[in-house]
Amino acid sequence: MECSPIGIIETPFTDPSGMPIQPTGAKGVKGKIHIAKAYEQGLSDIEGFSHLILLYHFHKSSGFDLMVTPFLDKTPRGVFSTRAPRRPNPIGLSIVRLIARRQSILEIEDIDVLNQTPLLDIKPYVPGFDIREVTSSGWLEKTQKEVKDKKSDSRFTET
Amino acid sequence: MECSPIGIIETPFTDPSGMPIQPTGAKGVKGKIHIAKAYEQGLSDIEGFSHLILLYHFHKSSGFDLMVTPFLDKTPRGVFSTRAPRRPNPIGLSIVRLIARRQSILEIEDIDVLNQTPLLDIKPYVPGFDIREVTSSGWLEKTQKEVKDKKSDSRFTET
Repeated sequence: MECSPIGIIETPFTDPSGMPIQPTGAKGVKGKIHIAKAYEQGLSDIEGFSHLILLYHFHKSSGFDLMVTPFLDKTPRGVFSTRAPRRPNPIGLSIVRLIARRQSILEIEDIDVLNQTPLLDIKPYVPGFDIREVTSSGWLEKTQKEVKDKKSDSRFTET
Repeated sequence: MECSPIGIIETPFTDPSGMPIQPTGAKGVKGKIHIAKAYEQGLSDIEGFSHLILLYHFHKSSGFDLMVTPFLDKTPRGVFSTRAPRRPNPIGLSIVRLIARRQSILEIEDIDVLNQTPLLDIKPYVPGFDIREVTSSGWLEKTQKEVKDKKSDSRFTET
């Protein structure tokens, strides 16, 4: 399956080191989505949604390991139990706040990706579909509160 | 960007017509994820999570329109304001319950995809990352409650 960008995400993060590792750690960080003109009509009605799901290409990650030591932990974990960028299909997922739309540009907040990240898809975030009553969140149970303050280092970038 | 399946999703839905259109309409529907043996180690620690995010290929949808009339509405909407399968990059997203793991097989519930859907990625669903306080959900505001009873028809399948 071949995927092509529908646009580019502009953020203040030009260096993977020091960037937040999840949107919850990127609260208030402003960014812009520049949608290719050819897809602009597909944004119709998007102004109505306060939150969007972004799927994007982790374009600076290369290769993958099946076991990874996440930023939030000291123990190696299976890659599918983590949100690490280096994965068999390096597709990232972030939920962001939509502030405004100007034609093919979306102003967003709480964005945690590298500047110039290629965007693959936008889906509306809808409580009825996307909010679940979680009863356990594995190794992340204890650590997900730390994520607000935790920053990335260089372990997931190209070398 | 080239994506390859990491496994296959087995569900009771062999025909796109009549299947639920979101996991909330598929409550209790059981399925299995068969992960390719080469990726089995990547499932380590996944047993700890009650819910998983699945990214998959809408393998039976072909092409896309920028404006679509969703199952839940009578008005055409921009494709990025909908969860329609026919989209520029036909990547689907569903949140499912994890019931059990047996080696490379995951038993899941609340699954709303076609049988034999190619799986691209699994991410842990984590409240701290994935639950947001939504203030508006656009045209879906009124209709998302109907989704439980609404079934798909043939409009998104190959012809």
